[in-house]
This record gives sequence, C-alpha cells and structure tokens, in this order.
Amino acid sequence: MEELAVAGVGMTRFTKQPERSPESLVGEAVRAALRDAGVARDEIQASFVGNVQLTAGTGQRVLKDLGLTGPPVINVENACASSTTALNEAAMWIHAGMAETVLVVGVESLSRHEGVVGLNLDDPISGMGAAWPAMYALKARAKMEQGLTVEQLALVAVKNRRHAMANPYAHFRTPISVSDVLASRPVADPITLLQCCPRSDGASAVVLTTLTRGRELANGRPIVRLAGSALNSGVLNDQVERASDATVRTSRLAYERAGIGPEDVDVCEVHDAFTIGEILHCESLGFCAAGAGGRYVEAGKSALGGGGVVVNPSGGLLSRGHPLGATGTAQIAELSWQLRREAGDRQVEGARVAVSHTMGGTVYELETNVCAVHVLKV
Amino acid sequence: MEELAVAGVGMTRFTKQPERSPESLVGEAVRAALRDAGVARDEIQASFVGNVQLTAGTGQRVLKDLGLTGPPVINVENACASSTTALNEAAMWIHAGMAETVLVVGVESLSRHEGVVGLNLDDPISGMGAAWPAMYALKARAKMEQGLTVEQLALVAVKNRRHAMANPYAHFRTPISVSDVLASRPVADPITLLQCCPRSDGASAVVLTTLTRGRELANGRPIVRLAGSALNSGVLNDQVERASDATVRTSRLAYERAGIGPEDVDVCEVHDAFTIGEILHCESLGFCAAGAGGRYVEAGKSALGGGGVVVNPSGGLLSRGHPLGATGTAQIAELSWQLRREAGDRQVEGARVAVSHTMGGTVYELETNVCAVHVLKV
Repeated sequence: MEELAVAGVGMTRFTKQPERSPESLVGEAVRAALRDAGVARDEIQASFVGNVQLTAGTGQRVLKDLGLTGPPVINVENACASSTTALNEAAMWIHAGMAETVLVVGVESLSRHEGVVGLNLDDPISGMGAAWPAMYALKARAKMEQGLTVEQLALVAVKNRRHAMANPYAHFRTPISVSDVLASRPVADPITLLQCCPRSDGASAVVLTTLTRGRELANGRPIVRLAGSALNSGVLNDQVERASDATVRTSRLAYERAGIGPEDVDVCEVHDAFTIGEILHCESLGFCAAGAGGRYVEAGKSALGGGGVVVNPSGGLLSRGHPLGATGTAQIAELSWQLRREAGDRQVEGARVAVSHTMGGTVYELETNVCAVHVLKV
Repeated sequence: MEELAVAGVGMTRFTKQPERSPESLVGEAVRAALRDAGVARDEIQASFVGNVQLTAGTGQRVLKDLGLTGPPVINVENACASSTTALNEAAMWIHAGMAETVLVVGVESLSRHEGVVGLNLDDPISGMGAAWPAMYALKARAKMEQGLTVEQLALVAVKNRRHAMANPYAHFRTPISVSDVLASRPVADPITLLQCCPRSDGASAVVLTTLTRGRELANGRPIVRLAGSALNSGVLNDQVERASDATVRTSRLAYERAGIGPEDVDVCEVHDAFTIGEILHCESLGFCAAGAGGRYVEAGKSALGGGGVVVNPSGGLLSRGHPLGATGTAQIAELSWQLRREAGDRQVEGARVAVSHTMGGTVYELETNVCAVHVLKV
C-alpha cells in the first residue's frame, strides 16, 4: 500500500473545559492543523470525525462554522479508537482515489454532558465507567502472580507524568512520585486513582494527503509518512494476562504493511487508560518479551532517553488526558511533532519510526473492542 | 473507479417490532445477505455498521453473536444516510485493497428507545422529530405557488403505498386513496399524516465484494455492479424550492463516476421522508424538469409500468418504512432484487440501471445534512 503524508496536525489542550463548546474545541484544533499543513480549507475534499459521546450529526455540527460542510462529512464511532478509525477511513478514501487531501478530527466534551446516555461517566473515580478499573485490576493481579510489582505499575504513571510536564497540551503537569501514586485513593486493588486516566475535554485534527501533495507542502520540513494502518475488533478478555489479543494481531498487520518490525520502532503512543494497560501493551506490541513489561518500565527503557522504545512521550492517556474520540488523532499529532523534531523538551532523539496504538471498548459490552495501530515514518 | 459487486442482500420486515432486539434484527438481515451471496461468515474481512439512535459500540454488539467480531467493525453515523455512508466506506476499503469481501449493515430500533437522547422521537406525529414536517411544508408551500397541487402531493403517497402492497418487507400494505391522504390528520399544512414516513424498526445488510469474486459467486444469476458512489454534506435550506442542492451535486457526481446520465436510470429508491421530498428529489435527480415533479407523479410516470423512472418500487420511506440507519442498505437490497428480476409483483420490467438516494439531517441542526447517491447496474 502506497504511503500517504500527514501534512499537518493540531490539537487543543486536553483538560476539563466545560465552558467550551465542541465547536470551539474543534475550531481551534482544525485551524491549527490547516495552518500547520499550509492548506486552505477549500482544499479539504472530505472530513472524517471521530466522536463517542455527542449525538448524531456531530461532524456536520462542529465543522459548519469552519466552512467545511459541503464536501462529505463522515461520522465514525469506534469507542476510544474513534479518531484513529476515522484516520483509517480517511486513508482509504485517498488510496481509492476519492480525494487527495482530507481532514480527520477527534472531539469529546465529557464535562458538558451534552451527549448520549449509555456510558457511566458520573463516577469521578472511574475514567471510563465503573467496570474498567475492575477489569484492568484483574489483569494486574494475574500479572502480579507472575512477578509484576505495584511499584512497577506506579512507575508507568510517574514516567508518563514526567513526560507530560514538558507537554503544554497535557491535562496533568505537576510531578508525582511512586509513593504519591501508591498512596492515592484506591479504585480497584491494585489500581489507585493516579493509575487511571482522567476524563478530559478536547479536540485534535490531522490533515492527510497524498505523498505527492505532501512533498509540495513540506516547505523544507521533514515529511511525516503514514506507512501502515490496521484495525481489528476482538475479544478483550480472551487472555487475562494480556491486554488484548487484538493488539497482537493488529500491530503485526500494521508492521507488515509498513515493512517494519517492533525492533524498528523509536517512539510509541500507547493506550494507557490504566497503568497495567501500558505494561501489557508494551508486551503485545513486541517492545519487550511477554512477562517483561514491568521490568521494562522499571529499567527506564520506555522513558525519554532510556534506550528502548520511548512510550507515551506526550504523557499518554494517564497524563496528557483522555477525551475518548479525540485521543487517537492526538496520538498522531504527538508522533508527527516527534518525527519532525518539534517536540521541545520531550523530543525523542533520532526518532524515525513511530507507532500509535488506540483501543476501545464499551462499558456494557466488555468482551468486544477495537484496536487501531498506525505506523508513521520520516 | 473500478466496479464492485453487490453479492448478496437481506433485510427484515420494516415495522414496529419493539419486542425484537437490535441483535435479533441484524441477525436475520445478515444471515439472509450471507445466504443470498453464498458467502460464509469467515469470508467477511470487515463490517461497516450504519446506525443513528443506539449507543457507542453498536456494530460490535450486534455482530458478536454472528461470529463477525475479530475482523474490523466500523460504526458509521450519518443520520438517515448512515448505512449508505457505511456502504461508501466499505467500497473504499475494497478499492484500496484492504479487503476483498465486506459486510454493510444498517439497523435501527426506534420503538425500543434503547438509544441516545437528542432526537425528538416522542411525538407520534413527526416521523423524524417535530421540525421536519414544518420544514418540508414550507417547501411544499413554495412549490404550490408555482402550481403544485395537494392532489399531486397525495399521489406520491398513494403510488408508494400501491408499490408497497407487493412488498412483503413493507411497513404499510393496505391501499390508500388520494382522499384518504388528504383527509388524514393535518401535521403541517399542506402535509398530512399519510404524507409522513413512519418510524420503523428493522435491519438490512449488503455483502460487497470485488467484481472478480462477484463473478465467482454469481452462479448463473445476474451480477449487480456498484458503478458509482458519491457523498456530500451541504446546506439543506439553501433554496426553499429545492429539496437540497446536495442532491443535485451528489447525483451528478455519482452519475459521472458511473458513466451514466439521468436518462439512463430505470428505477430509483428516493428519500421520500415526506411526499414533497419525492417530488423535489425527482427534479434534483434529473428525472424531470425543475418544477415538473408534481406533473411527473400525476401522469403516472414514476409508477410501476408508467414509462418513466420507476420511483420507490419498494414503497419508499413512506410505505416500506424508515428505520433511519437501516434505510440506505434497504434501498440497495430493493434495487438488487429489481436488477436481478427477483422483485415479484413489483418488478420493474427491463431494469438495468438503478439509483439509490438517501438524505439525512439532524433535527436540531436543520441546516446541515448529508446526501448519498449510489448507481447500480446489471
């Protein structure tokens, strides 16, 4: 499959911002992405909008005042992987020759409660509904019987917070220690509050185009190439000691399409909704051996400058924040900045191959989910 | 763009059936489509699910017991054009080489009220929320000043009911007369109750594949080819005398992609949410001159055997019914049966070119909408 170009990216800060409408959030992210790409709005031939909680017609609603209705607008919902699923659909439109340049948007306004019922978001303890911490806690317990320690779990949160301190878009930027994490409010043993992602409000956007057009737009900057895209649904709890069989299957497919292996990856944005998630995903993505995820973070491998795959330089879901539908395209934004050497104090030195990993499930259907993996290169 | 094959179609009856779950409705439609295509479920490499009212994760939920989770499941929402938008995304996956054979599903369970808030469906008068009849009534009024008569409006409902009487999948199958239509409860003058589509529950499904695989599966039957697909969003009320500028733009694009003109069309499923809609759409789709829509139906041109483009042989939204997300793929099902000469007493003789036209908007955002037009050939 031919490579495409991520011509521009933009996002709002992820934080609690109930005073801002979805239109305002999307406006900021889309204008930033168009400006970053050097693309005028009339070059956008279709828009793909990922969202979970708002009601029908969200894409048309949030894009209208930007003058982006008229061309097709397609609303995509795939739980927490909504905007990376939208990225996949956008890529298919370009591959199929339906468009040269398209826009991908992710947006969520969880604090406003404008949207649908159906997800239990009223419990401030649980980032994604009451059932998720318990389910991840079971996975953590199973891993602890194989040697994982609570300190290793806590180190994921500490590392991602340290990364987020250098990220102006992050929800949480105050430093935390292992003892802070372990002493925070218990949620579902061994998961404590600081091991759960927050519910954030925010938007993010990506301008995707052909490699030919991307070269024209590059203007001397490195060209970020979308080299592989893969999606799967799957059974979430098929193996309690793994995050998801879907991550294994989907990442292998994305690596194959991009012509890489896990050993080639320099930087990865991983779906760390809970600390144990990052540990399991690092194993499933092939960054370390099965069972070695705890030691990987403990040895500092996944931290900036640690010598392994740098995981979640943005701060991840745990500290950059998690506005469901906006998370996927925010991962793409972070990785684009990393590959273009524009990530400031959180820059991964020498990053040439980047991977985004987004997972989603629905609270009332714990067994079904989606996994989206994308490979970017420079 | 290369043609694809509609290898199989299936649907439930459209009616009030609150006793049936979305899973049950989808199960019936998908099994019928797979059987019709002669395709085993493990040949399905991705599923695209169009739905408006249910909550996040609908596709994964309704496909799980069918054994269709594991491969990608992508939820698409585009109001009343959700499943024809899903068809477009599915086609792009095949065009891009991501899959050979995919499933497209539309489902809605309006009577169960399981889903989201945000659409006003509690008023039994209004098929799509209280604002729609009033808006269409304005359009009808504008046309009446140019000569449209209330009898011409009523004839749309009468014709579509007559068609539906031969359709076992239709919501309404008892005959009605012009006087019945005009004497039915006033909704928004001149629109009466029998000029509004019902809120139905139902599901429909399409198996889409490459032309090569379609030929292998044909087994002596005519091969239904998807020759053109176009989407647009647009401003719904840009011209009060037209249904939508989006229909003009989108149908032209779809015709061009399929290498046809409106004069080549034998049969069309049109988005007749209200009688005036069909009249306006027939003009916008180029089946008759602007302003001639009323006379077109009055002369019987759009009826079975009338010598023009047969419009809504299924009974359309008005009589087959309108379960929002399920409507688009039901149009594709009807047109496939027509092109395969399997439509029984509602068969359009000699049909070789068929068009589906689906529109959608959101009640609280009257100015934005979506239009999807597909061209099928045999």
